[in-house]
Amino acid sequence: MTPLRIEHRDGQARAGVLHTAHGEVRTPAFMPVGTHATVKACTPEEVRQAGADILLCNGYHLILRPGVELVERAGGLHVWMRWDGPILTDSGGFQLVSLTDHARIDDDGATFVSPYDGTRTRITPAEAIGAQARLGADIVMCLDHPVAYGASPELTADATRRTHRWAERCRRAHPGEGHLLFGITQGGFDATLRAESARHVAGLGFDGLAIGGLALGEPPPLMRAMAESALEHIPEATPRYVMGLGTDAELLTMVGLGIDMFDCVLPTRLARNGTALTAGGRLSLRQAQYREDLRPIEPGCPCPSCAGGYSRAYLRHLFQAGEILGHRMVSLHNLTHLGALMAGAREAIAARAFAAFRAAVLDGLAGGVDSERAALSPVGYSSRP
Amino acid sequence: MTPLRIEHRDGQARAGVLHTAHGEVRTPAFMPVGTHATVKACTPEEVRQAGADILLCNGYHLILRPGVELVERAGGLHVWMRWDGPILTDSGGFQLVSLTDHARIDDDGATFVSPYDGTRTRITPAEAIGAQARLGADIVMCLDHPVAYGASPELTADATRRTHRWAERCRRAHPGEGHLLFGITQGGFDATLRAESARHVAGLGFDGLAIGGLALGEPPPLMRAMAESALEHIPEATPRYVMGLGTDAELLTMVGLGIDMFDCVLPTRLARNGTALTAGGRLSLRQAQYREDLRPIEPGCPCPSCAGGYSRAYLRHLFQAGEILGHRMVSLHNLTHLGALMAGAREAIAARAFAAFRAAVLDGLAGGVDSERAALSPVGYSSRP
Repeated sequence: MTPLRIEHRDGQARAGVLHTAHGEVRTPAFMPVGTHATVKACTPEEVRQAGADILLCNGYHLILRPGVELVERAGGLHVWMRWDGPILTDSGGFQLVSLTDHARIDDDGATFVSPYDGTRTRITPAEAIGAQARLGADIVMCLDHPVAYGASPELTADATRRTHRWAERCRRAHPGEGHLLFGITQGGFDATLRAESARHVAGLGFDGLAIGGLALGEPPPLMRAMAESALEHIPEATPRYVMGLGTDAELLTMVGLGIDMFDCVLPTRLARNGTALTAGGRLSLRQAQYREDLRPIEPGCPCPSCAGGYSRAYLRHLFQAGEILGHRMVSLHNLTHLGALMAGAREAIAARAFAAFRAAVLDGLAGGVDSERAALSPVGYSSRP
Repeated sequence: MTPLRIEHRDGQARAGVLHTAHGEVRTPAFMPVGTHATVKACTPEEVRQAGADILLCNGYHLILRPGVELVERAGGLHVWMRWDGPILTDSGGFQLVSLTDHARIDDDGATFVSPYDGTRTRITPAEAIGAQARLGADIVMCLDHPVAYGASPELTADATRRTHRWAERCRRAHPGEGHLLFGITQGGFDATLRAESARHVAGLGFDGLAIGGLALGEPPPLMRAMAESALEHIPEATPRYVMGLGTDAELLTMVGLGIDMFDCVLPTRLARNGTALTAGGRLSLRQAQYREDLRPIEPGCPCPSCAGGYSRAYLRHLFQAGEILGHRMVSLHNLTHLGALMAGAREAIAARAFAAFRAAVLDGLAGGVDSERAALSPVGYSSRP
């Protein structure tokens, strides 16, 4: 039984609803990232108002701090962080790439040296599943072994096959009732390996499948080609999640290929540096050109910053003065932007107008003739070309 | 005509309403500090929900950045920072103490060297008034010359008399319709000078009077004695404001002497370091003892953190992880605490039970038998002993 109900199709793109123990997720869905069980600077209520149905937390970081036992005793992640909607936890696999200096990998699992206090943590596939289940994740991710862009063919093949063996062990260690378990396909930047990995992991019978190890610096056409190689071997009915994306253009490209779920630190990380996402491209609010700009970030945007009347000039002042209200307001704007982008995609798919929607968004981002109009639409985007 | 309507009296203490161009302020009132036109980490809506009727912004800092012209063009401070209630601006006088290395003082005014970019800013008494009026302050403060605790008698006398000459010039430069102008009395830590200063400045006919230059490290009995020396010469009907306070105990002592208004960075500055104000004293949430404490900061408190179910353990986790949601939540708690303290004082004065209220609060802070009960009352304090 797939947890995904596909309600609309437009080419490869599809829109529907993913069912979890903590409610429904409208797909395609963007998941804001709350690495340490908090979406930086935002409350859960604010994140929901920005259009998010589901959050991602990082199982690896939470195992290290504050620890599974404490979160479990608190009543699980939902109670701990005050978010009653669905939560997906990542397994720690990505940290094998991002914290490569802190991890040693063998066939049985990975040993991490904590960057916080130097203590060693051993994670096996079964333990990764068990810990995420105890944290209370609605969607549990397999432990995988991604490789960096530019990794050797040998390392890529080795890591991909280890990902497969780990996936089999994760599948046997199923987290149990109330938790969906998603497999992760790898394959580096080799189309044959991508196809092999998707075929192998899809054959294990997971509740959903992720395409991992992308957005690591590769050119966009290569990212797209790798996703396509994997998707050929992922059944239509299976929920599909590309990890670590992304920009508006990346997200819509992947929606067009039939991807249902995304996560990325981009909206909150950019916000921290004063960069706002808009239908007309990015605004770097620290720039002098915004010093006297009394318009909101994006006229018509329903986020607390724009609808609240905060001007670009005031936000710039907050960043200049090191005031964290700036980070907070731009985070809410950026999350609202991506929430609206996904809502626009869902509407466009339902209206069988996704290609035109995507073209209009790309044109707007490129400063095209539609950008002014797109910027003025109530959700930041118009699903009608 | 005094802008203060005194509605209740209990001994020297009084409760009432201060009228300003942007609405009423219930007194005694605590003013949260938004130095750079933002109360750190909080939105104006949140600050209002914490019980604040009026904010303080720092005229000196805002003159330097973003500048009076820009704020004026934006429509004034209220529009600039999205707060439609009353705003009091400080003049920059306090910076003559706090930024003493950056200021040169002569009889005509002060020259500041900007800590941001080294540019020199000249502020005269008339210019300080004019700038605050252009910023749009509801209550404009005179330029004064406080001295540090421990200053010589000569410097103290000299600065106090300069404060008087500047007060006369500020009075002549009245900010005009829609702006209240408050004088500031000084006098260092010399009771005779305090009395002389209050008599002199009270004689100039301001809309309200502040007692400045306290809370600079002096012992509590000396602070109280200095305030009493000044108060003897400040007419009953005049709004009275002690600048830069303070702790719960300091605030209630001053309310007991008949003070109506306060401001302090304490609640938000403590929050930044993870320290929460409660009826039973301060909690340093970074301490290991809170690692597994699943209670809210203060059971029964209506703030977004306590009412929202955020646990001490989760807040500690946020501070450990460097997540700014912790700063935000504890700021809201601390502002709510002081809002509730002032609300409790107003109710107690109306019920002619202020002395008992103050005694119960002090007992609670000292960990006394009433502290558990006080901690469990809906506003954090009970006005009934």
